[in-house]
Amino acid sequence: MTSPPRNAAALVIGNELLSGKIVDANIPYLARELRELGVALERVLIVPDDVDVIARDVRALSEAHDVVFTTGGVGPTHDDVTIEAIAKAFGRAVVRAPEFETLLRELYGSRLTDAHLRMADVPEGSELVSNEQVRWPTIRIENVYVFPGIPEIFRAKFPVLRDRFRQDPWHLRMVFTKLDEGFLKGPLDRIVAQFPTVQVGSYPRLSDPEYYVKITLEAKDRVAVDDATEALVASLPPEAIVRVA
Amino acid sequence: MTSPPRNAAALVIGNELLSGKIVDANIPYLARELRELGVALERVLIVPDDVDVIARDVRALSEAHDVVFTTGGVGPTHDDVTIEAIAKAFGRAVVRAPEFETLLRELYGSRLTDAHLRMADVPEGSELVSNEQVRWPTIRIENVYVFPGIPEIFRAKFPVLRDRFRQDPWHLRMVFTKLDEGFLKGPLDRIVAQFPTVQVGSYPRLSDPEYYVKITLEAKDRVAVDDATEALVASLPPEAIVRVA
Repeated sequence: MTSPPRNAAALVIGNELLSGKIVDANIPYLARELRELGVALERVLIVPDDVDVIARDVRALSEAHDVVFTTGGVGPTHDDVTIEAIAKAFGRAVVRAPEFETLLRELYGSRLTDAHLRMADVPEGSELVSNEQVRWPTIRIENVYVFPGIPEIFRAKFPVLRDRFRQDPWHLRMVFTKLDEGFLKGPLDRIVAQFPTVQVGSYPRLSDPEYYVKITLEAKDRVAVDDATEALVASLPPEAIVRVA
Repeated sequence: MTSPPRNAAALVIGNELLSGKIVDANIPYLARELRELGVALERVLIVPDDVDVIARDVRALSEAHDVVFTTGGVGPTHDDVTIEAIAKAFGRAVVRAPEFETLLRELYGSRLTDAHLRMADVPEGSELVSNEQVRWPTIRIENVYVFPGIPEIFRAKFPVLRDRFRQDPWHLRMVFTKLDEGFLKGPLDRIVAQFPTVQVGSYPRLSDPEYYVKITLEAKDRVAVDDATEALVASLPPEAIVRVA
């Protein structure tokens, strides 16, 4: 990739998420990080530890989006099938990466087993990305970055790559109102029609004492966002506006 | 559907989740509920408020899974496109449901607007499911159930339908160990080979003082789960086992 990705997808892998044993903590982190970087996260899939399912989804996401992040299913045990699946998605062999093997031998020392060494197996042609602070590499193959499922490790590794993904930022404004969505629909429809580049969201809260509906206005064009916010505020009864941010 | 669904998928709709503004709370709830009901949640998608994307995904999920749950994108504003998208997925018209309209007129009284009435628009041929306690109906079309994104409302409405989904339950055993996955791989591979009906998961924790890896063993056949658990425990060094549950 020569220019930063404009959009992204995430493939979250793990039976434990689908069976309700663990609550995913990586999607919220990745969504916030990408938003701050200016990258549009367009699609998230949560799938089981199944080679064929993962291979098919990686292939489809890789074709439809600029960059793909996978989390989970990396490690030495039988339920860690992500590497095999991604290799299958791209028709690559799985090969042992010598520099990764060297790192594992150094880290595990005399405790090293063959199972540990499996973690150095990567799809042929992968790039291994690391730095001085975070030596455990992140594997990239085509436009797919492979992360572990453990949130602490994901959060340690993502910053190593962050600058690859930096795009023009979004600008966000918010209008907090005491109005019901039934009353807001008319004004919102007019703003949406008048400012086609601005993404307008409407989010009711059931039990917030401060406001009833939060309206968000977003675009990469700051002037358009400010103009749309002003136009919206002007179209609502002043006493119904709690706060503009 | 004449027999309860064996598997399920969820389609989570909302730009606010993909842009990191809101953390989804419905997937964990649905995953736990379905697990308890004995239904396998096989796939979760998070997608934007986009009619064509939602229509395509609803169609694909409906064909591949016994039952589909959607959350989000229902309401009166421009970004609530779920109903239109599901109607499109099944080639149905959107029609106003008279009993839903009657309910809305009763609930909103003189505050009712045309925008509120849009919430009574459903894909033609939908079933509206409600009861005495929860009068706001849940819309079913084909094998797709349509829920709102607000977690409090989802949790109020799901129990109305719960008994439709009850299946044979899963049995779950857990073994907490002080072993590293590199050492566990061998014993786990043997259990997986010996008990093909038992789903075996291995979950390391980075910073739990009590244990290092939790192993889960699950199946609908209780005897198989108990036998696999016993066999696993017998194959590990006793001093490495923290607890068996």
